[in-house]
Amino acid sequence: MKHSPRLVQLIDALRTLPGVGPKTAQRMAFHLLQEGRPGARALVTSLNDALSAIGRCKRCRMLTEGDLCQICASSQRDLSLLCVVESPADVVAVEQSGSYRGRYFVLMGHLSPLDGIGPDELGVRDLELILDEGAVKEVILATNPTVEGEATAHFLGDLTLRRGIRPSRIAHGVPIGGELEYVDGSTLAHALAGRHSIS
Amino acid sequence: MKHSPRLVQLIDALRTLPGVGPKTAQRMAFHLLQEGRPGARALVTSLNDALSAIGRCKRCRMLTEGDLCQICASSQRDLSLLCVVESPADVVAVEQSGSYRGRYFVLMGHLSPLDGIGPDELGVRDLELILDEGAVKEVILATNPTVEGEATAHFLGDLTLRRGIRPSRIAHGVPIGGELEYVDGSTLAHALAGRHSIS
Repeated sequence: MKHSPRLVQLIDALRTLPGVGPKTAQRMAFHLLQEGRPGARALVTSLNDALSAIGRCKRCRMLTEGDLCQICASSQRDLSLLCVVESPADVVAVEQSGSYRGRYFVLMGHLSPLDGIGPDELGVRDLELILDEGAVKEVILATNPTVEGEATAHFLGDLTLRRGIRPSRIAHGVPIGGELEYVDGSTLAHALAGRHSIS
Repeated sequence: MKHSPRLVQLIDALRTLPGVGPKTAQRMAFHLLQEGRPGARALVTSLNDALSAIGRCKRCRMLTEGDLCQICASSQRDLSLLCVVESPADVVAVEQSGSYRGRYFVLMGHLSPLDGIGPDELGVRDLELILDEGAVKEVILATNPTVEGEATAHFLGDLTLRRGIRPSRIAHGVPIGGELEYVDGSTLAHALAGRHSIS
């Protein structure tokens, strides 16, 4: 049985969501057209609103409704610390840890020459402008521990060093609560290489 | 860190989708507002189109763009068979099995007195009208093997019998390719109770 053209269109649109395959998209579409109709209308409205109202922070590229995100606009932040992350979700994750009071810079990706993503696409010029202001004393590179994330961290580390600012990289190792037995070899290798003396 | 109001609205709207929790909704929202903007616009358009154009088949209650779904409109179907299912997704699943050539009736739910879902909400009157036409010789009850699905099948079986039409229930048992060792006890009990002689 073939779906009707508008249903096919809706399923295709839902499939562009991260982690949604054909079966899930079909299930979502049926839900939206049956008992989920009020939710579907709310989704249309809120998505339209968000698309037109939410842009990027002029300073750190975080998603925000105003010119500046609430972190860049806050006077309670430690201006000497700048944490560089790949995505807005990473900012949320670091904030939820409750252990960081500096500002952020959101790359919105990582270096990926094959996909045409170089320093310009990641807003590295904006980052350089911030560093050149002189307030930042340490740049914490919190890109993901993937090949591309490591390469991006390496590149930004060089750039930071050249300005006489201290670059640092977040620690990678065995997660808290994790058992050594179930940790993958690559993580364990990082944990061993990053070992520190105890006193 | 608190999300901006419109972002909160979008995340809440995405959470109404089946199988989407707070983390997934946030991931989807960030995706839609970053690299997924063209897809987000396509989703708004297609969802709007689908909401206004897709209704229910006047005969079988399947989702459709016209008055009648393509199965009810087709002349290639065996009118003596009627398969009763709970949802449009079930119609798709049975069609994909390629082993059924009759028509369907979609209940859009199952009997659930506590939620106020009785025969009227499931369109049982429309079903009775179809049965009273006289063409249907067998009603295949393919509701889900849950307590509510079984109760619904039982209710519809009585209703069918009273009209002198043969009701049948799809078989429940060990799935093809499944190993006995890993099948749950309830399924195995069904498989044993539903055993048939081999000749």
